[in-house]
Amino acid sequence: MKILVTGAAGFIASNLIPRLLARGDEVAGADNFFLGKRQYLAQHPRFTFHEMDLLDLDGVVKLMEDFRPDRIWHLAANSDISFGTKYTDFDLKGGTLVTYNLLEAMRRTGVNEIVFSSSGAVYGEPTVMPTPEDYGPILPISLYAASKVACETLITAFAHNYDLHAWIYRFGNIVGPNPTHGVIHDFVLRLRDDPTRLVVLGDGSQSKPYVYVEDCLDGMEFGIAHTRAHVNVHNLAVDDQTSVREITDWTIEAMGIDRASIDVQYGDSPRGWRGDVAQVQLDTRRMTALGWQPKLTSREAVQRTIREVVEQFR
Amino acid sequence: MKILVTGAAGFIASNLIPRLLARGDEVAGADNFFLGKRQYLAQHPRFTFHEMDLLDLDGVVKLMEDFRPDRIWHLAANSDISFGTKYTDFDLKGGTLVTYNLLEAMRRTGVNEIVFSSSGAVYGEPTVMPTPEDYGPILPISLYAASKVACETLITAFAHNYDLHAWIYRFGNIVGPNPTHGVIHDFVLRLRDDPTRLVVLGDGSQSKPYVYVEDCLDGMEFGIAHTRAHVNVHNLAVDDQTSVREITDWTIEAMGIDRASIDVQYGDSPRGWRGDVAQVQLDTRRMTALGWQPKLTSREAVQRTIREVVEQFR
Repeated sequence: MKILVTGAAGFIASNLIPRLLARGDEVAGADNFFLGKRQYLAQHPRFTFHEMDLLDLDGVVKLMEDFRPDRIWHLAANSDISFGTKYTDFDLKGGTLVTYNLLEAMRRTGVNEIVFSSSGAVYGEPTVMPTPEDYGPILPISLYAASKVACETLITAFAHNYDLHAWIYRFGNIVGPNPTHGVIHDFVLRLRDDPTRLVVLGDGSQSKPYVYVEDCLDGMEFGIAHTRAHVNVHNLAVDDQTSVREITDWTIEAMGIDRASIDVQYGDSPRGWRGDVAQVQLDTRRMTALGWQPKLTSREAVQRTIREVVEQFR
Repeated sequence: MKILVTGAAGFIASNLIPRLLARGDEVAGADNFFLGKRQYLAQHPRFTFHEMDLLDLDGVVKLMEDFRPDRIWHLAANSDISFGTKYTDFDLKGGTLVTYNLLEAMRRTGVNEIVFSSSGAVYGEPTVMPTPEDYGPILPISLYAASKVACETLITAFAHNYDLHAWIYRFGNIVGPNPTHGVIHDFVLRLRDDPTRLVVLGDGSQSKPYVYVEDCLDGMEFGIAHTRAHVNVHNLAVDDQTSVREITDWTIEAMGIDRASIDVQYGDSPRGWRGDVAQVQLDTRRMTALGWQPKLTSREAVQRTIREVVEQFR
């Protein structure tokens, strides 16, 4: 199968692409290295890499014309949510407009399958928790999540009008090796630079389901294999949550830092930043009903990732 | 009060602006005359008009800096839904990007109230009818509706992050004088040109709630006066529906055309076009609970509008 992966040098894609190659797929990857890292790129005879900006519609069309993918895994995004609050057109461009370009290029070139990494952040601050896929109203509180909703609705509209098949996954926090951002990545790098002090955004009570990246990819592939509506929307999460305070403690311990020698400074706010959804629980029953379950709990996913990231950035 | 109205030469704005002026408001209007008509523009000492493209962010910022509105009525949009299927970036630009520009300009200049005309089309083809505001999942089937959702979520995210107040109204089909598009407008113009033949998109069974524009504006103003959450989302509709077949019959009759002398050609599809939501019922209880009700039923709104539009385009 020929697969185009966007965000190919990013966290999730760098874990996905080796799996695709191992099963014999031919893979083209695109990235602009905004968050992605060159060293995360696959090296393989069946992998071709295209350094490009997906805001260039003509370039995207040409890539699809040349490569003729059977399916697109659209994983490119700004995943640094707080950044999108400072630069208000960041998610609009890197999320909404890029996704439009991909869909329009698919329409023009006859590519008709897309897998999309959305986010549980689309639910904003829901009144129902755990939050199911059919929750409404959809009132996101960050520009990141607003863009994810915009992408989802572009996908559903294109799917309806131009006969695409789409799999939309609303992720919990995905963790694992090759991070480019996120709380574990940030804590490890900052503690490596200065093991005497850690400033934590928010009061540490933020609590979310963390999904190990291999579980995430297993779940996405399981969903693709077992659903065939035009648009298939699934939460992809685990049933337990981990707090920022737990992640702080476990990271300090994993780095071998003496707790008495470090000044951990929590903020006052129950949120990490404006637009942060501090308490997340996603209803996982739709994926469970398909027959899929994650192997690791949130606690296990976080603890394993801390060990791996400490090792990776040693 | 100083009010900026976008889409100022369009159908709804041309009915709104005289009301604002009559109560003493100072009004600035912007339009690019894509759908709006110059002859619909208000002429009044307290009205200033700006012919401009809202895709020009600098221009939008300058307009807000110069005029310093207290509130924006953002009514500009592509309202020709089928057009957006042929030109897939049309709603993205004229809806999503324009709305982003307005919100960003509000943020930069400290304007903090926005009234937005969304659409019941955001619900796609819902499984619950009449459809309430908290319906999910939000899976629109047209690029028009996808853009309306994108606009709504940009508004909610900006409201959360930058302390805006927003009133979002999900309209039924709004009808009344000064139309620029829509089934009644199209039927009247086409029958005026050729009273022997009328081609109808779809099989005529499409059935939607039609709201008279004065009721629409009353409802919007009532909502503004009686709600004060950061983001207030209301369906704005009536409880009965009118079919395209009824509109066809009533328009032919109102134009004095002998039914025996005209060839009415219905299509085969239950939809007017791809992406058309053919059966719409919007739950109106949230507005009713606020204390507001429309004066005209859908049937009355359509019949009155047919008379007015036949007269206006005679």
